[in-house]
Amino acid sequence: MHLLKTLCAFPAPSGEEAGLTQFVLDYVREHGPGWRQPPLVVHDENRLQDCLVLVFGQPRTAVFTHLDSIGFMVRYGRGLVPIGGPETEIGYQLVGEDAQGKIACTLAVTKTEDEDGDETEALGYEFSRAVAPGTSLTFACDFRETDTTVQSCYLDNRLGLWVALKLAETLEHGILAFSCGEEHGGGSVPYLARFIYEQYGVRQALICDITWASEGVRPGQGCAISRRDSAIPRRSYVERIRRLAEAAGVPYQLEVEEHGGSDGRELQRADVAWDWCFVGAPEENVHTPHELVHKADIASMLALYQVLLREL
Amino acid sequence: MHLLKTLCAFPAPSGEEAGLTQFVLDYVREHGPGWRQPPLVVHDENRLQDCLVLVFGQPRTAVFTHLDSIGFMVRYGRGLVPIGGPETEIGYQLVGEDAQGKIACTLAVTKTEDEDGDETEALGYEFSRAVAPGTSLTFACDFRETDTTVQSCYLDNRLGLWVALKLAETLEHGILAFSCGEEHGGGSVPYLARFIYEQYGVRQALICDITWASEGVRPGQGCAISRRDSAIPRRSYVERIRRLAEAAGVPYQLEVEEHGGSDGRELQRADVAWDWCFVGAPEENVHTPHELVHKADIASMLALYQVLLREL
Amino acid sequence: MHLLKTLCAFPAPSGEEAGLTQFVLDYVREHGPGWRQPPLVVHDENRLQDCLVLVFGQPRTAVFTHLDSIGFMVRYGRGLVPIGGPETEIGYQLVGEDAQGKIACTLAVTKTEDEDGDETEALGYEFSRAVAPGTSLTFACDFRETDTTVQSCYLDNRLGLWVALKLAETLEHGILAFSCGEEHGGGSVPYLARFIYEQYGVRQALICDITWASEGVRPGQGCAISRRDSAIPRRSYVERIRRLAEAAGVPYQLEVEEHGGSDGRELQRADVAWDWCFVGAPEENVHTPHELVHKADIASMLALYQVLLREL
Repeated sequence: MHLLKTLCAFPAPSGEEAGLTQFVLDYVREHGPGWRQPPLVVHDENRLQDCLVLVFGQPRTAVFTHLDSIGFMVRYGRGLVPIGGPETEIGYQLVGEDAQGKIACTLAVTKTEDEDGDETEALGYEFSRAVAPGTSLTFACDFRETDTTVQSCYLDNRLGLWVALKLAETLEHGILAFSCGEEHGGGSVPYLARFIYEQYGVRQALICDITWASEGVRPGQGCAISRRDSAIPRRSYVERIRRLAEAAGVPYQLEVEEHGGSDGRELQRADVAWDWCFVGAPEENVHTPHELVHKADIASMLALYQVLLREL
Repeated sequence: MHLLKTLCAFPAPSGEEAGLTQFVLDYVREHGPGWRQPPLVVHDENRLQDCLVLVFGQPRTAVFTHLDSIGFMVRYGRGLVPIGGPETEIGYQLVGEDAQGKIACTLAVTKTEDEDGDETEALGYEFSRAVAPGTSLTFACDFRETDTTVQSCYLDNRLGLWVALKLAETLEHGILAFSCGEEHGGGSVPYLARFIYEQYGVRQALICDITWASEGVRPGQGCAISRRDSAIPRRSYVERIRRLAEAAGVPYQLEVEEHGGSDGRELQRADVAWDWCFVGAPEENVHTPHELVHKADIASMLALYQVLLREL
Repeated sequence: MHLLKTLCAFPAPSGEEAGLTQFVLDYVREHGPGWRQPPLVVHDENRLQDCLVLVFGQPRTAVFTHLDSIGFMVRYGRGLVPIGGPETEIGYQLVGEDAQGKIACTLAVTKTEDEDGDETEALGYEFSRAVAPGTSLTFACDFRETDTTVQSCYLDNRLGLWVALKLAETLEHGILAFSCGEEHGGGSVPYLARFIYEQYGVRQALICDITWASEGVRPGQGCAISRRDSAIPRRSYVERIRRLAEAAGVPYQLEVEEHGGSDGRELQRADVAWDWCFVGAPEENVHTPHELVHKADIASMLALYQVLLREL
């Protein structure tokens, strides 16, 4: 779990993934030659900006894993605006850096008075100095591990990233696509998907991301295969995936949600007929510094991806 | 109206159109050879999934007709989540099927108590047994016909589909495109539109769908030509269509709405410069089991499509 | 400022840009031959509808400027629906034209009583006669100029258009793209962006539009470079732009907003990896007939575009 801890502590809010992309690239260059099937590494800023694509063998299926996280951006004065949809509990520890140096501050609520004397509340920070507008802040990482669980900020989606990198070790045929901007409106999947389709003819996708525990998807009971969230993928594709999971005996839970979304939504809107399905472990305390995932669900998630990349 | 009745009773909520696609395909293969201009039938799951494209002669205009309907999906316990935007009156009859067999149940509201004892209400169903999560349910069809009206669930958009199939009988030049997923966020029009543009160079579209009656679009007064809904098509294209309707003497009503949407919205967002306009009969009791359309408006709709496909 | 005044008075709400497009085309044809580098003019209704593209030299960067404005459309009876997001103060003067002739009317609120006797309020107009449904209305233009400011309806975005046309006079390398529909959901940037990328390989964009003054972006203090609005562009690209502004000594202000959007959002969703950044003067009284911009900010905006098109 050392790698996972490093990934969780790496700041990469939407729009600022470049550092993490470089970290993953270095990791792949170091470890890839020892994998069962060393992949072709596509890192082309002109075509793919800060995304990364790994191509293994003769791919039939692409795994989409987003690199970015939620966070906050300094506005004016002591104000903050969210990046994506973070929970906003007063006192959360935030970190960042501007031209004056490192920042370790605290999430606060600032009250401002308008011309009529009316008070409005807004997100803010408490720190010993003013931080430059436009500076991004992310949760300070407190990585906690027990025999059965891991807990940290940004398991969504550094755990998806970790699973993808573990999957890479034994993968024979498939594509791993590392996307940007997912937490804040997306925008990289359209060109990633186009690139993958045009270069490799692949139209099957799995969304390797983390979902939330619910009354129907319980922590420790297995990775979720999502029948739907706010978007509805084709039933026939989800059913194929369920049957493969059943046949392989990998524990899983079927998710049925009304809300939420993922990179799958952008595949659904693409002008190529992608099939997609969200497959990922459930977590508790979503979008807080205390995201919690059971190790059994991580094992199930990795096993399921290994089966699906082989069989789909 | 026997065909329309069959279409209205055919379950095909968003994401599960495959059965209806096959039905339409069989219908076209049976009847198409006797049409004035037998069409080229494009059914290519790799490129178009469960959509269908019929190409007649030298097409200049494409008619987009969505196959899917609204409905519900079983969540966990006795809960339901909507597919698209159905009305949700307690007591509506719903039908479906899971591994245990046929389902005929009733729409209900379930109350759940959270940890603090607070009650929340959610959509649910009443049935003699639990239904498998992920199962979709649709309105039970009660098709009613008078001398002047038809009434049923899913006139939106099986009536659009019916009009398209009637139009097909005498069509010389044009494309009929049967789309999926319209009721729940869309997603098939982008690849349909790209296919049609790339293969046939067509950039003119009509959206063959059903709208709602209002104080300005009254039942029985003619098919609506929509100046706008939440999206605004180019004025010049809508005006061309109005002039053709006027010249042909086909009764129509001009719709001007702030809300609502159709497959046209996805054409507007495409990276090809499509012109599009919604042309469809108005109905009462939208998205209920009791959608009601006047036969005079169906006749006007079909006549208008015949004129437009000839003249545009 | 005579040109700006003419542009502000030209009616061109979303969907009805054709007249303004022709005006700009005529302007370019008249003045373009005298510019430092006469551009290639692309006006191709089949491919670009009512948009316009000017290509100068060997372009590396495209400037997107929207032609359309907010406004209102007549619904039924005396009702209006908005085009885009106009402010709606009772008494605003509106102008338009239908088959019966010119219209000069007043924005009103109409009250309607439903079957149960409940009153609802809706947008409406007061005029001596009924106006045809589907007719669009725009703010009557009252152009006001002082030594330091200009004030009018539709500085958003006729001022952006004016800056683009001034920029054209000395531009050596770059693309000016005039878009449609921005105020009401967009829709032209996808095909504009595709055309520009496919024909010229350009993937760098600047959004030449007007933003709002705020506690962090003050009138008269310089053009805004936007770090973000509801969409977040890549940090690396925004930082390049800031450094170029700093190096050139052009006054600017960094904008950090949670809400709002521009043509940049559509570039972010494109299936080509565009970099984009919003660069534009701030205004007060946004989306009213009284939009106010300081001349110092206009000068800063033009100077900044001249630097960026040379250096990016």
